[in-house]
Amino acid sequence: MRDFSPEEKILRDEVIAILKNVFELYGFSPLETPVVERWEVLSAKYSGGEEILKETFKLKDQGGRDLGLRYDLTVPLARFIGMNPTIKRPFKRYQIGTVYRDGPIKKGRTREFYQCDADIVGSSSPLADAECVQLALEVFERLEIDIIVKINNRKILSELARMAAVPEDLTDAAILSLDKFEKVGPDEVIREMVERGIPLASAERFLSGAQDPEALKNSEGYRELEPVLSAVRDARVVWTPSLARGLSYYTGTIYEVYAKGSSVTGSLAAGGRYDNMIGQFLGSTEKIPAVGISFGLEPILEVLKEQRRDLPMRKTVTQVYVIPFKNLLTEGRRVCQQLRRMGIKTDMDFAAKGISDGLKYANAYDIPFVVIVGPDEVAQGKVKLRDMRSGEERLLAVEEVAQQISRSSA
Amino acid sequence: MRDFSPEEKILRDEVIAILKNVFELYGFSPLETPVVERWEVLSAKYSGGEEILKETFKLKDQGGRDLGLRYDLTVPLARFIGMNPTIKRPFKRYQIGTVYRDGPIKKGRTREFYQCDADIVGSSSPLADAECVQLALEVFERLEIDIIVKINNRKILSELARMAAVPEDLTDAAILSLDKFEKVGPDEVIREMVERGIPLASAERFLSGAQDPEALKNSEGYRELEPVLSAVRDARVVWTPSLARGLSYYTGTIYEVYAKGSSVTGSLAAGGRYDNMIGQFLGSTEKIPAVGISFGLEPILEVLKEQRRDLPMRKTVTQVYVIPFKNLLTEGRRVCQQLRRMGIKTDMDFAAKGISDGLKYANAYDIPFVVIVGPDEVAQGKVKLRDMRSGEERLLAVEEVAQQISRSSA
Repeated sequence: MRDFSPEEKILRDEVIAILKNVFELYGFSPLETPVVERWEVLSAKYSGGEEILKETFKLKDQGGRDLGLRYDLTVPLARFIGMNPTIKRPFKRYQIGTVYRDGPIKKGRTREFYQCDADIVGSSSPLADAECVQLALEVFERLEIDIIVKINNRKILSELARMAAVPEDLTDAAILSLDKFEKVGPDEVIREMVERGIPLASAERFLSGAQDPEALKNSEGYRELEPVLSAVRDARVVWTPSLARGLSYYTGTIYEVYAKGSSVTGSLAAGGRYDNMIGQFLGSTEKIPAVGISFGLEPILEVLKEQRRDLPMRKTVTQVYVIPFKNLLTEGRRVCQQLRRMGIKTDMDFAAKGISDGLKYANAYDIPFVVIVGPDEVAQGKVKLRDMRSGEERLLAVEEVAQQISRSSA
Repeated sequence: MRDFSPEEKILRDEVIAILKNVFELYGFSPLETPVVERWEVLSAKYSGGEEILKETFKLKDQGGRDLGLRYDLTVPLARFIGMNPTIKRPFKRYQIGTVYRDGPIKKGRTREFYQCDADIVGSSSPLADAECVQLALEVFERLEIDIIVKINNRKILSELARMAAVPEDLTDAAILSLDKFEKVGPDEVIREMVERGIPLASAERFLSGAQDPEALKNSEGYRELEPVLSAVRDARVVWTPSLARGLSYYTGTIYEVYAKGSSVTGSLAAGGRYDNMIGQFLGSTEKIPAVGISFGLEPILEVLKEQRRDLPMRKTVTQVYVIPFKNLLTEGRRVCQQLRRMGIKTDMDFAAKGISDGLKYANAYDIPFVVIVGPDEVAQGKVKLRDMRSGEERLLAVEEVAQQISRSSA
């Protein structure tokens, strides 16, 4: 777990604001569930599964109840749906929040991280799937990140496995091996499948089938995928028959978003359709179809930092620092309040330690402007505005200062 | 711990946005520390104290480290200052986040709640104290909540205790008893002080002294308070000599914000100067003066809900719901994307279940507008806009729809 200093947090807040904005533009409303959930919810069948549970923080309250820190936002969503059966569906919600995994401490992996999820519960229309993909396209346009969206349908892979005579109980294993194709290459995928007990001939047929899109277009899975593709119709969205995604609860469309031309090779967002999970989790006989997408704040920030490498990150939100002469603190405070009333993010040297100390402070925080309130300025009913980048100084009325600063940060 | 449905969360987000906005206007930058802290930090001397520690959630990671969920945002700030000694002071930061107390489950008290803190670390100027009070005035103006700010200086009470010959080791006890004055009245305060071991004569002198502002104006504490009062100079800020505040780490100015004419009697925000806590916490010989204010999201929301009782709360952020005819889904989706591109928060009936079902859905979520995409409308290159409140319907171009909706929600 780590701190985010203002320098980091300002950039994080920018990204979160964009996500929130686009989620709402697409008709998703905010939901907030607590960080601490009952253990029985987190460990329920059809929730995160054994592997995740091993990495889940466990605690007890004073009443002896077993609790845990949430490891994702999907299980709490399923619980919320169960507890609010009258909520009108489709229910479109987004949630931006921290989740926790008690994994080994290693570089580049934090145990507290943000997930930013948008899900549509209660719609089986392929247009709902398209909506999630469209949402991703819009988010990354606003973030100015060049992306590719790999998309597939889980059923295509199951059908392919059947045709390749992969033993039924090894279908998931075959799909998981295939998922590593781009990382490890064909030989390793075959080797792993065979090791998992799949006959060599089946493994080879499965792998070569996954590389033959034209043949796969006759599958039922593709007939499901086609309306999603034709609704989105965007060159950035590419059907990738080998795409499998790890989580076994996906039932239909699946997609992953990658940055183009970046050193960040992991996905920036991913999701898909999971028509069985919520109903099974709730032990309901009713099927509750759902589709969603989850954005990873950490990889998105990595890409942005890489792109902005030449730009300094902002150390403060403050736009102007007011430095009054020692005997002009009251006047300085008045200027400060006037600027704030005009919407300028303003800070002030309360100690009035002198111009030189004040300029050092503004420099340390990269505050772009300084306003000096001295006796000459006050006598003329003005202040001195100093542009910290150019060093230029001008004598201005407070209203003019506000205009100048608004213009320069627009 | 509880869920915040979209209906609750939309209002919460509004308040958080106002707090964030005003904090930044006043030159505070965002900081984020993790929810989980090391137990040794949370339990350190000069941190929250015994009472709080009893209510702190404790957990272990896989490496066997003792951890806990944070109970406030001040202790993490002190730790951050210790870990970042080169950060330029005064350091102004705000943090909006959840904190946790493992108290008994009872009505109106949740074990996860938000604190919204702004602190200035490294300034002993009374103008820094004034800044925090001014910030509170501005926040509640924007929230349109009528308030009174009670303000005092801890030193006034210590001096008064000395003058009343309260035994030195019972000064804190006397101040804590006095803190209940407005709730329990004079007799009970005297009774409690005597029970705590304070001689009756001292208790009486202490209490009557606290009710005689003119006499107290000669104290050193008042000489510290006076520049704060005269910097703020606002009728809503009232010197209240009996104000004590529970936490013993305050060393100077203290203040509490109350709603006027509300059934919510607890404070909406509170804070003060704590010049010793950070230095002592860090085991440093250096004194690190600090002053801050903490806003409670829960009581603020209670007041707002009381004030808005006649207004329905928003169930969704969506401004318009697009209902296409069954065979016009593609056209409907195009209208939907056009509206979004014009900044309108738009949702759509993907299943095209028919006009009547669509209107029911819009009603269930109180979506203010509906756009109907039918064959007649499409033939004319227009859509039908229905105002769900008035029932009025008009045939309009999509651009006109966007204008109409923007205008109505401005």
